[in-house]
Parts: sequence; structure tokens; C-alpha cells
Amino acid sequence: MAVSLWKSLLQTTKSRLFLQRGVSLYNSAHGFEEEEIKKKLQQFGGGYINLSKEDNGIGVLTLNNPKLMNAFTGTMMLELQERVTELENWKDGKGLIIHGAENTFCSGSDLNAVRAMSSPQDGINICMFMQNTLTRLKRLPLISVALVQGKALGGGAEFTTACDFRLMTPGSEIRFVHKQMGLVPGWGGAARLVQIVGSGVALKLLSGALKVDPERAVYLGLAEETLPSSDETRSLEEAQGWLNQYTKGPAEVIQAVKKVVTAGRELQLEAALRTEKDIFGTVWGGPANLQALAQSTKHK
Amino acid sequence: MAVSLWKSLLQTTKSRLFLQRGVSLYNSAHGFEEEEIKKKLQQFGGGYINLSKEDNGIGVLTLNNPKLMNAFTGTMMLELQERVTELENWKDGKGLIIHGAENTFCSGSDLNAVRAMSSPQDGINICMFMQNTLTRLKRLPLISVALVQGKALGGGAEFTTACDFRLMTPGSEIRFVHKQMGLVPGWGGAARLVQIVGSGVALKLLSGALKVDPERAVYLGLAEETLPSSDETRSLEEAQGWLNQYTKGPAEVIQAVKKVVTAGRELQLEAALRTEKDIFGTVWGGPANLQALAQSTKHK
Amino acid sequence: MAVSLWKSLLQTTKSRLFLQRGVSLYNSAHGFEEEEIKKKLQQFGGGYINLSKEDNGIGVLTLNNPKLMNAFTGTMMLELQERVTELENWKDGKGLIIHGAENTFCSGSDLNAVRAMSSPQDGINICMFMQNTLTRLKRLPLISVALVQGKALGGGAEFTTACDFRLMTPGSEIRFVHKQMGLVPGWGGAARLVQIVGSGVALKLLSGALKVDPERAVYLGLAEETLPSSDETRSLEEAQGWLNQYTKGPAEVIQAVKKVVTAGRELQLEAALRTEKDIFGTVWGGPANLQALAQSTKHK
Repeated sequence: MAVSLWKSLLQTTKSRLFLQRGVSLYNSAHGFEEEEIKKKLQQFGGGYINLSKEDNGIGVLTLNNPKLMNAFTGTMMLELQERVTELENWKDGKGLIIHGAENTFCSGSDLNAVRAMSSPQDGINICMFMQNTLTRLKRLPLISVALVQGKALGGGAEFTTACDFRLMTPGSEIRFVHKQMGLVPGWGGAARLVQIVGSGVALKLLSGALKVDPERAVYLGLAEETLPSSDETRSLEEAQGWLNQYTKGPAEVIQAVKKVVTAGRELQLEAALRTEKDIFGTVWGGPANLQALAQSTKHK
Repeated sequence: MAVSLWKSLLQTTKSRLFLQRGVSLYNSAHGFEEEEIKKKLQQFGGGYINLSKEDNGIGVLTLNNPKLMNAFTGTMMLELQERVTELENWKDGKGLIIHGAENTFCSGSDLNAVRAMSSPQDGINICMFMQNTLTRLKRLPLISVALVQGKALGGGAEFTTACDFRLMTPGSEIRFVHKQMGLVPGWGGAARLVQIVGSGVALKLLSGALKVDPERAVYLGLAEETLPSSDETRSLEEAQGWLNQYTKGPAEVIQAVKKVVTAGRELQLEAALRTEKDIFGTVWGGPANLQALAQSTKHK
Repeated sequence: MAVSLWKSLLQTTKSRLFLQRGVSLYNSAHGFEEEEIKKKLQQFGGGYINLSKEDNGIGVLTLNNPKLMNAFTGTMMLELQERVTELENWKDGKGLIIHGAENTFCSGSDLNAVRAMSSPQDGINICMFMQNTLTRLKRLPLISVALVQGKALGGGAEFTTACDFRLMTPGSEIRFVHKQMGLVPGWGGAARLVQIVGSGVALKLLSGALKVDPERAVYLGLAEETLPSSDETRSLEEAQGWLNQYTKGPAEVIQAVKKVVTAGRELQLEAALRTEKDIFGTVWGGPANLQALAQSTKHK
């Protein structure tokens, strides 16, 4: 108790952001009226988001609206938020795979909802709602992979950037088609894309609305690798095998690893260093650490 | 009107920076006395800066002082500032190519002016003047390319980093020769070089005063590609062809793309996300967006 | 006098950080009680840290505790701090090579000290102590190289990231083994690793506790190159030869180069630009600059 108080006093504001869960980027202070936008989104139904949490600590999140290439309806946006909350509270979680139903990823927003909500207020409110969810998704203390089968277009391309890694199946593509809709990304996809591939590549992908196939994606650093199979089930198994390399070990340690990397990715060096120290404090002298120390004594 | 008020209230301070024009890094609060330094620069004449704005939305800016390899005189620095203001106000602009006259890029500062202004105050004041201009240049809502023919040396090398991209002709070179003058970059070239190629490569290029040829520049990520031709006119056409790939579409959309990428490049993630949302709000429901939505309905 | 006052007034807080020496990340305001932790570290002896400062401006720092693969004891941590202070005050210094005795780099912390100091307070205090030292090490106005012979494990892998560059000998390895000890980096190694190789690669190296051989290190951007020799003495000469390419010229200029790159690495663009301008002011009109200007006149 005294120790945890002492720890919390040492933690900086920045650090707390990465140690707490469910912190949102926008709230009413930013003019974001969450309950109002949720009511509007509720009116645009169709599709659903499934989450299964496996015993090996890997979750599988499925975007399911195949008749619209898994485009996000209003209710899917609401469900995504709930699933992210569920993942934030998953104590045994270590990894996450996100994919789309029927062998394609996601084509962005359901245009019917878009047309009905084309006022500036609605547009910006949806952006704030989705940025809140996707920022929390990217900061999950889980190693996350977007498994891109088929097409990831527009908002779907943005969605892939909210994962730590992207794996692509043969013949799949990622394409920021926003320009062709007279738009730019608004779900945070541009900001995250710059972090992943640098500002030069990001500028080319967005201004050219370039179709990125797996080979090019790997070359640009947008994807990790091309999986061998384009079969829906088999490529999901391959993605799980790939992720398994990085999720061995106790959940609290894998989660701490993800947190220090998130801090390094989002913060300036000094703030990242301070946060790293705080996260280190959550595992130092913890069960996995004490067991490893005991093991290393025995080997002597 | 109500909507635009509502929009502006939502915008953060950081966002406004990218939505406004002509914001300077230094003003009198930083000890920068712009009018005084402009009077001094006025005394060192020679050369000029030409700007032609084409109907296709691509501007061509030419550094013109060939007897000194297009080195910047004082009056050229003043003219550059005026051209940047002109480009900030170019509503139909989408792209910009910067090159030097007579098939070479730029050799930095005119040493005659440098010798006459070698006091610390003058040196720092020129840095502030040029950093103001080059920061505004890099933030222009245009996709900008430095076409490097011949040599880009010292301040000329720094100048290339104020563009989004660098294209090089066969036999050309970029070289940060500052060390050989007992100097480091001061026009912002070091800070921008670190952003483009990373701190390790930047440290090698600056401390070794390394000559970077096109192949090496592409390998290091300093240049996009080597153009086929080293002929002055033809390579300018090739650069325009390259840039054309990225400037198709309405000016307001291309400009918005550049702005979201600039935000991602300059700001920390949270600030970049908020700015992206604000920029999205400038195109959502705008003419290009509405037309695209109408088109997609027709196709149904 | 008036000029230097004028200069110092212009300098921003951020800039001063890079122009001053010995600035620490943690002090008593962060709950860091330096004297107390130093007393504790003093109790865990063994090994030493050697520093030789050569006439060519290149220092060689040797981690010397070969019976524990140069693991850090408490007194070695204290000595490292002293050596860094000495390097901060080395006016003629231009480069630094860090290596380990008996042809291996460093295996992290001495586990005997670790076991005795496994309380959360001790753990976090050691992190703060080492982060202070390694942050000052990375900011030294010297071009620094970790020469990795043999193994760089855990804290040893973290230590390599506090240098500007890493050179590896054939058969050597860098491995962040923290996960296997139930830990994450705490000496700043995660934050710095993200800066060097990006967050994706960092996440893989840490969560997979991957062994990185020289070829892979070069591919990932973690190391500059593989040196030809694995012989202890010869590879040290090769590292000095490599570093020599970048340390030619006056110390004050090389130091200024390192400072502008450090600013670009650690600060957001606007702060980096302002700092670059301040550092430029320290060499503009200085002896090396005036001599180069005089030379260029003679050549006319």
C-alpha cells in the first residue's frame, strides 16, 4: 500500500496515460458530445463486430458486414467501442488479430450512413468518436495485428494503422482512397500513417490514392510480410502463428513490453524515458521477475 | 456562419498553425527585428527569384544567380520571402518545383554578404529570417519538390530539405559542406535532415561533410529517385511528370492532404490527431466530397 | 560580454539543455534521492570503468568486469557517472568508443546486486540513476560508437542504444533478454530503441527477446556495419578508423554538429529549429569559421 502510493506519486501525467485504461482523446471539453453522437449512430444499423478471446491470450476481432465489404455502420462503430473496452479489461490478453469476414478486410464507412450525416458537425463528431476508439485500440497493452485479406479501403486502410503490425495475404491491397471521395483521413489514419512509413511515403500514398499490394507494402514498411496463403481460414492460422512468436511468456510482461513501446512511439524522448521507468516499476520484483531470478540462482 | 464559428471554436492552437498562413517561427518576442535585418539584406544585391504559376496548379520557383552557382544574395532572401507569401495565397496551387538556373541548384549564401555580416547578431538574425521563410515554405499546402541538378551545397543542401521531396539528375550532388566552413546548418537544415533520414544518417552527412550522389541519396531516403535526364529542360519536364502523379484532383483536397501530412510530421501524435480532425472538417461535405457522393449514388 | 549576454537571452529553455552540461532527467523533485542510492550502489563492488582520452580527440571507454561478462556492479554504475562527467568537460573531445573487456560487450546488471536490491523503490531508483547517466552520455557533444564484440545482453543491449552508432564484430550479438527475466528495459533502452529502429521493430525485438546478429542488425538499422575482424585489438582499431571519417576538423565544430543532431533527435521540429539557430550562433564568426572565410578569399 505504501509502496503503491509511492509509485503513483512518482508517475508523471504522461505516464499515467499509458498505465490507465479507457482514456479518451476527446471529451465534452473539446466540444464532443458523446451521448448525442451515439444516439445518431444507433440509427444506422447492420453488421456486427465479433470478439473471441482465446486461452493462449490472443483475441480475434472480426468485422462482419460482408454485403458491404465489412464497411462500418453506425452500430458497428458503437460495438467496436465496446469490444475495445472489453479488451482493455482482459487481464490475460497478450495479442490481438483484427480481420474482416468473408476474406476481405474493410471498405471504410457505410455510405448510407455517411450521406445521412454529411453536416460538418456530424462529420467531425464521428471523427472524434472513431479517433477515441482507435487511439484506445492502438494503446491496448496487446500486440495487435491487422490481417489484411482482400481490400482495406479508405477508413478500412486507416483502421489497419491502429494496429501494431499489418500482415497481408497474396492479392490483397491497402488503399487510402479518400482523395477520390474528395476527402482526407479523419479517423487518425494520416497521423498514424506518417508514424509508420514516414511523411514522404504517407504524402505519396494519400495524394496519389495509391493501391498498395503486399510486396510494395512490405517494401514501404507498411506491412510486415506477405502470408503464404490467401485462404481465409488458413491465413488466420498463419497470422496466429506469426503473432505467437511475440506473445510467449506471462501476460503482465508482454503487456509491459507493449506499454514501453507505446510510450516510445507517442511521447518525446524525456517523457518516454520517465514512462519507461514507471512501467519497469510494475514488473520489477513481480512474480515473473522473482521466478526468473530464482531460476538463475538454481542454475549456478 | 454559425458552422464556421463552431468549427473555429473546436480548433486547437496547434491546428490553427496549419490552417493559417504566414505564421512565423520568430518575431520580436524572440529578439528578432525583422525590419532591421531586411534593411541590411537589401544592401547585398544580385540575382533574383522567379516564380511561374502554371494552370495545372504546379508552380515553378527558380533560383537565379548563375555566376555564383545560384548562391543567395541578400535581395534573393527578401524575394524568396515574397514568393512564399505569394504561394501561400495561391488558391489553385497544388504542387511546387524548386530548381536553380543553368542546370545547377544552389551553393548556399553569397560569401560577400556573409563576410560583411559576420557578427554574431547578424548571423543569428539571418538564420531567423531564413528559418521563418523556409518553415513557411515547407508548410505550404502544396506538394513540393526540389529538383537537384548540378550541386546543392551548404545552404543549398539545407534548402532542399524544405521541400517534401527531392529528385536528382544524373551526376548531381547534395552536400552539407558546413563543417568545412567551420559551421553547422543554421537555416533549419539539420533539424529537417534528421526528420528526413534519421539522426544517424544526419550525423554522418554533417560530420563527414559527405558528398551524396543520386544513388546514395535514394538509398538513404534523402531523394525519391534519379531522373533519367541531366538536360536542364528535359529534367524539369520529368520532375513535372513525377509530381503530376500526386496532384490530380481538386486543389482544396490536395491542399488538405498536404496539411494532414504536415501535422503528422511536425506534431506529437495527439496533437496531430486533433489537427487531422480539424482539416477533415474543411473538406467533409465540401464540393468535391458532395460530388463524389453523388457519383457513387449514380453508379448504384 | 554584451554579445554573449545577448546570445544567452535569445536562447530558449530547450536550447539551454543542449548547450549546458550535466543536466539530469531526475532530481529530488522526481522523488529521486541520488545520495541515498549512491550509498547503496557503493556496497556492490567489483569491476571498473576505464577511460582513455587520445590526442586525436577520440576517447575509449572500457567496461571491465570480465568474469561477469562485464556486467554492471554498483561501483561500476558510480564510475560510469564520473566518466561521463569527465567526458562532458573534455574540451578537445570529438569522438567516443565504448567497448567491453576481453572481447565481449556487457551482460547488463550484476545479478547479485539485483537480487539484493529487488524492492520496487530500489529498482526504480537504479533506473533513474542509470537513465540520468545514459541520457547525459547520449547527449555528449561527441560522436559515440558502441563497439559490440561478443554479447550485448539486457542492460548491455540498452547501453548500446545510448551511443550514436553501433558497430559489430563477426559472431557478436545484441539481445534484449529482459522478457526472459520477467522484465522490460528500464535504463531507457526501450525509448531509445524506438527512436533508432522504429516502434514496430522495437516491439518485435523486445517481445520476442530476439537475438540480433550483425547482418540482421545492419538490415534493421540497429548497427551501422559489421567490422571485418573479430579480434579484440584489431576490431578496436577498425572502429577507430570508422569513427575517424567523422571526427576530422576542429573540436568545437564537431561538437556543434553533434549538438544540432541531438536537438533534431530529441525535440519537436520548432524547438529543434530554435536550438539549431542557437548552436549555429556558437560557431558563426568563431575561429574555425573566420579561418575558412579567410582561406576562401585567398583562393579567389
